[in-house]
Amino acid sequence: MIERPDVISLAGGLPAAETFPAAELAAMVADILGSDPGALQYSTTEGFEPLREWIGARHGAGTERVLVTHGSQQALDVVARALVDPGDLVALADPGYVGAIQVFRLAAAQLMAIPSDADGMQVGALEQRLHAGARPKLVYVVANFNNPTGATLALERRAALGALADRYGFVVVEDDPYGDLRWEGVALPPLASFSDRVVTLGTVSKILCPGLRIGYAVAPPALASSLVLVKQALDLHTSTLGQRAVHRLLTTPGFLAAQLDRLRPLYRDRAAALADALRGGLGDRFRFQPPAGGMFVWGEFVEDIDTQRLLPAAVASGVAYVPGAAFAVAADHHRALRLSFVTTPPDQLREGVRRLAAAVCRHT
Amino acid sequence: MIERPDVISLAGGLPAAETFPAAELAAMVADILGSDPGALQYSTTEGFEPLREWIGARHGAGTERVLVTHGSQQALDVVARALVDPGDLVALADPGYVGAIQVFRLAAAQLMAIPSDADGMQVGALEQRLHAGARPKLVYVVANFNNPTGATLALERRAALGALADRYGFVVVEDDPYGDLRWEGVALPPLASFSDRVVTLGTVSKILCPGLRIGYAVAPPALASSLVLVKQALDLHTSTLGQRAVHRLLTTPGFLAAQLDRLRPLYRDRAAALADALRGGLGDRFRFQPPAGGMFVWGEFVEDIDTQRLLPAAVASGVAYVPGAAFAVAADHHRALRLSFVTTPPDQLREGVRRLAAAVCRHT
Repeated sequence: MIERPDVISLAGGLPAAETFPAAELAAMVADILGSDPGALQYSTTEGFEPLREWIGARHGAGTERVLVTHGSQQALDVVARALVDPGDLVALADPGYVGAIQVFRLAAAQLMAIPSDADGMQVGALEQRLHAGARPKLVYVVANFNNPTGATLALERRAALGALADRYGFVVVEDDPYGDLRWEGVALPPLASFSDRVVTLGTVSKILCPGLRIGYAVAPPALASSLVLVKQALDLHTSTLGQRAVHRLLTTPGFLAAQLDRLRPLYRDRAAALADALRGGLGDRFRFQPPAGGMFVWGEFVEDIDTQRLLPAAVASGVAYVPGAAFAVAADHHRALRLSFVTTPPDQLREGVRRLAAAVCRHT
Repeated sequence: MIERPDVISLAGGLPAAETFPAAELAAMVADILGSDPGALQYSTTEGFEPLREWIGARHGAGTERVLVTHGSQQALDVVARALVDPGDLVALADPGYVGAIQVFRLAAAQLMAIPSDADGMQVGALEQRLHAGARPKLVYVVANFNNPTGATLALERRAALGALADRYGFVVVEDDPYGDLRWEGVALPPLASFSDRVVTLGTVSKILCPGLRIGYAVAPPALASSLVLVKQALDLHTSTLGQRAVHRLLTTPGFLAAQLDRLRPLYRDRAAALADALRGGLGDRFRFQPPAGGMFVWGEFVEDIDTQRLLPAAVASGVAYVPGAAFAVAADHHRALRLSFVTTPPDQLREGVRRLAAAVCRHT
C-alpha cells in the first residue's frame, strides 16, 4: 500500500540514492579488477587488511580488533552469537531498532526494555534494574541519532553507562550508523572512550551506500577472536571486491570529507523542512525533537491518537509513516510515529505533512 | 608454514583464479552503476528478482522458493538457524565438510556421523540408525564430488535417502558447489528429484568466482519463508551490486557454457596429472579414487601412516596437504589426506607428489 506512487512515503529507512558515489565506484572496480588478481578470490575472515587498518585508525584501535562484516546488521548478529546464550538478558532502549530486536529474538535472548527520552536511553533506569539484581550479558545502544527516536545519548549518560559496564561486567554494543550525519552541534565522545567493555559497530551504508553490504565491529581484543570464529562459520568472509572498493573510496584523498559535505546539508535542509511543516501543520498536537543529525524524526501526539489506527486514513490521504508500535520492546508507543526525511525533497515533505494533518483532522 | 613460497601447497580449497571473469565483470559493473540507480541501495531480503528467477528455473523451482545469500556457507547457516534447536540431531557423512561442521556446532546441534565410501554417504548405515530410533532434524549431504572425499552419492543411495526423508520427516540439505565441475560421466539426478523435503544450496564461487559471495538456497515453500525471516535478521540482504553483476554474467548468452568449457578441461588435466603422479610415486601404498569432477583427491595410506605426524616432514620436503583428521566427525581418518589439484599446474603437481613420496620414505 505504501509503495503506491501517489503516496508520499515517510516510512522508509533508506539513505538518499542521489548521494551514492556510483561513478567513482565504477572507476575503482574497473581498476581493481584490472590490477588485483585477488579481488575475486576467497579472502581472510577478518577482512581486507588495509580496510581493517583504516577502520582501526578511525576508532583509535589496533587492526587486530577489527572484523569486517556484511553490514553492521551482521556485525550485531556475530556479536550476539558470540556472547548471548538462550535465556540471557539483553538490555536495550525502548523503543528500539527493529533489526536489533530481531537479532536478539533469534538468539532467544530475554529482552530488558529500558525507557528512553530525548537524551536517549535512561541509564538511571538501567542502573536501578542492575541494583535490583538484573544481570544483562549485553546492553545495546544506538548512541547517536538513534533509530527510531533520533535521540543522542547525553554525555553524562555515556559516562554512567561505561561505569556500569565496568562495575557489572556486561558488554556494551554501540551501534553507530548515523554519527557521521551530524549537521549541528559537536559529536560526543564514543562509549568506547568510557569503558574497555565496548564493541563498536559501524557501516558505510549511511555515508557511502548500503548496497555493497560493508560494515564492521571493533571489539575488545579477547572478544575479537571469538567474533572471527563465528563469522567464519556464518559466511567465511565479507565480499572481497566490495571491501577493496570501499577501501579505495575511503582512502581517496578528500573523498570522504566531500561526501559528508554533500550529505549533511542535503539532510539538514530536508529535516528543517519537515520540522517546519510539522510545527505549521500539527502545532501543539504533535511533540517532537528537531533533529541535529541522522535520518529520522520521532514524534508523539499529545492527544490519545493511535498511530496504527490512523495509518489507513493517512495512506488514504496519500502519506505513510511507521507507527511507534513497530519499534516497541515493552511499552506500546501507540501515540508515536517515525518519519524519515532523507529521501524526500522539501516540497514533498511539506505536502506529506499537509496530508498527515488532514488525516488527523478527519480521524479525530 | 604452508604459505612458504618454496612449499607446493595442495592443501588449499580455492578455485583457479585465472578462470575468474574479471574483465567481463568490470564491464558489467560499470554498465550497471551507470544505468541502474538501485544498484547501490538497500534491496529485498529474498534477493534480486531476476537472479532468483534464473536460479529457480535452473532448479525447476518457483522463484518464491529461492533465497539469495552471501555464499552457500551462509545459506547453510540460515537453514540451520531456521531448523536446528540446541541438542537437535544432525546427520552428515564422516569425513565431512569443515564449514558445515562449524555451522552445526555453532547451532549446538548433536552431530550424527554416517560413514562414507567411494559412493558417498552410506545411506544404509543412516537407515539402521533411523530404525534404531535416531531422529535427525536434518541430514546434510554434498552429493556431487564431495569435499573432502571427492565421492559422488550413488543413484540408489539418492533414491533411498529421499525415501527415508519422506518416511522419517527430516529435511535433507543438498549442498552442491561442485556439481557443475564434472568432466567425465553423466550428472546424477539431484536429491530434490527424490523428495520434496530437500533444500538445495548452490553458489557461483566454484564456477564464476568466490569473492563476490553469492550463493543461494532453494527450499520447500513453507521453509522458504522462514529462511527469509532469518536472513533478514542476519544481514538484511545480499550485496545488491554483487547480485546484479552475477545475474548479468549468468544471463549473457553463451557465457556460462563457455566458462564451464574453460574450467572443466583445466581441472580435468590437473586431476589426471595428480592421479598419474600419485600412482607413479606412491603406487599401492596409497589408495584413492581418480576424480571425475570437483576439486579434490582424497586418499588413504594402506600402511598405518599418521598423516598429521607426516605433515611436518612433508612440509620440510616442500609439499603440503590437509590431514584427514581435519575433516573428522567421529572416526579419526588418521591415514587419510586431502589434496587439491585445481590451482597447481601439472608439473608442480608432479613435483609435489615426488616430494610427498620422499617424505613418506623418510618417515616410514
